[in-house]
Amino acid sequence: MVPGDVIKRFRVKDGDKFRLADYDPGDTLGLDIEKDLAQQLLGAGVDRLRGLQEQLYAEARWSVLIILQAMDAAGKDSTVEHVMSGVNPQGCHVIAFKAPSSTELRHDFLWRTTCALPERGRIGIFNRSYYEEVLVVRVHRELLAKQKLPKKLIGDNIWKERFASIRDFERHLARNGTAILKFFLHVSRDEQRRRFLDRMEEPDKKWKFAVGDVAERRCWTDYMDAYEDAIRNTATKHAPWYVVPADNKWFSRLIVAAAIVDRLEKLDPKFPHLDQDALSALERARKQLESENGKAGSGRGNKEKEDSSRA
Amino acid sequence: MVPGDVIKRFRVKDGDKFRLADYDPGDTLGLDIEKDLAQQLLGAGVDRLRGLQEQLYAEARWSVLIILQAMDAAGKDSTVEHVMSGVNPQGCHVIAFKAPSSTELRHDFLWRTTCALPERGRIGIFNRSYYEEVLVVRVHRELLAKQKLPKKLIGDNIWKERFASIRDFERHLARNGTAILKFFLHVSRDEQRRRFLDRMEEPDKKWKFAVGDVAERRCWTDYMDAYEDAIRNTATKHAPWYVVPADNKWFSRLIVAAAIVDRLEKLDPKFPHLDQDALSALERARKQLESENGKAGSGRGNKEKEDSSRA
Repeated sequence: MVPGDVIKRFRVKDGDKFRLADYDPGDTLGLDIEKDLAQQLLGAGVDRLRGLQEQLYAEARWSVLIILQAMDAAGKDSTVEHVMSGVNPQGCHVIAFKAPSSTELRHDFLWRTTCALPERGRIGIFNRSYYEEVLVVRVHRELLAKQKLPKKLIGDNIWKERFASIRDFERHLARNGTAILKFFLHVSRDEQRRRFLDRMEEPDKKWKFAVGDVAERRCWTDYMDAYEDAIRNTATKHAPWYVVPADNKWFSRLIVAAAIVDRLEKLDPKFPHLDQDALSALERARKQLESENGKAGSGRGNKEKEDSSRA
Repeated sequence: MVPGDVIKRFRVKDGDKFRLADYDPGDTLGLDIEKDLAQQLLGAGVDRLRGLQEQLYAEARWSVLIILQAMDAAGKDSTVEHVMSGVNPQGCHVIAFKAPSSTELRHDFLWRTTCALPERGRIGIFNRSYYEEVLVVRVHRELLAKQKLPKKLIGDNIWKERFASIRDFERHLARNGTAILKFFLHVSRDEQRRRFLDRMEEPDKKWKFAVGDVAERRCWTDYMDAYEDAIRNTATKHAPWYVVPADNKWFSRLIVAAAIVDRLEKLDPKFPHLDQDALSALERARKQLESENGKAGSGRGNKEKEDSSRA
């Protein structure tokens, strides 16, 4: 497990002074550990996460919204896979937001993601999110035209207004029981190139490669500027950004897992407490079940048989 | 048609100085007109509304959100019926929000209404809305417990926070192309009593009466206080409240229709403009259709026959 004060180094709670240049995609805090040890550390984090998620689900008061943003090949999909695979899928759902549908475009830019928010007790993971509205839409301004906004509403302030909408929205969610964690998996341009080449080579990875992804590399600086401005304008105490060095996948996974565990530990979800009445009712139910055994005869024996045949 | 400056008298754009006591539920601006004339006036408003809605739909950039709030029997349902019946239902949908479902309760208090927001080009009518969250939930505080919020988030500021969430939310919608009109149909306690008695008498209205409605009358003052505070805290330039005298149904309908027409006229929606290329394409399409007639022989004759058989 990665300790809480390590995570702090990557957490941005107040965007004012944020500069992306202060964060190195290759950072591993000087650690150079064996693959086995990294996996062992991650395993401990995932185990802790699984336990906390069970309590979150049972308490059913807080919901957790995890946002993953990054350039292509930074490791969004594999982070979800490695960090969240241990968690009961009943309490955790992942939604990957692609280009908006025509129905989605007929609504305000927060609408489609709002409808997909996690219920109380659940973890919702947005693989891309409403932040695309101030990233790809900002870099490729022609996408804004597709949104059919009344023309008089598209002014010079539009990105500032979108940041304000996002801040207001996240504050509302936080006030109403949603814990928000936002991750920017910060990969370098060189590392992206290596991973793209890798995708083209390996038979199992070819399907992940899209020709358009290479064209997007031309806009790298625009994207970095857009990310910097987005983080600067939307990093808050109740909805912090984590700028996670992503050139080393083992490291970024450790940080993401540790940040989620840290937040869940602070929420401190508890299994519902049974009061004396509930305990008495439980006791009566137990007696009733036990007395059924006598009447039904071989009931219990059958059950055991069933269980062992399933194992 | 009711002129725009009359509507102004009932519009609250800045809540700071709002006092409900300044508004008389029996107000008709001194008008005492025949039923026929009232219907004629309303008819003119509804006609204008129908035309504007057609343009709104064709342009498909603005959406219009109409919120109706009131005590029972103030005339919400009949206002929708009489004001909106002329409008093409393809461009207008009404949603009546009842007590929230268990799924809805597992989300923040703005979630269920957000998912039901109108698309661009449409008019969405909320018969009750998220304002119930600062009205009935405030008067019957036990309803708040059902919302399963984390306990530490339920503080003394909760209504202030909800007002802030609503203001932020409406500002976001306004910035993104939703015109918002909020109506409080302001009925007096006496008039409500008369209408309840009426419902109990008339065979066609009995179904609308619920015994619980009478019990709610005991909380009348609490409700009026809650409405006053809600309007005070959420009346803004971009999302004004209309406090509509509702003791006379003919009058309240005239005001509601006129306020909607006034807002739509200011939006000034236009049928999409066809440029020279589009007009040329249209011309080519016309020629193609006309040339089909020669080949298919009796095509046009058949079409006319069909039309007349449908009439």
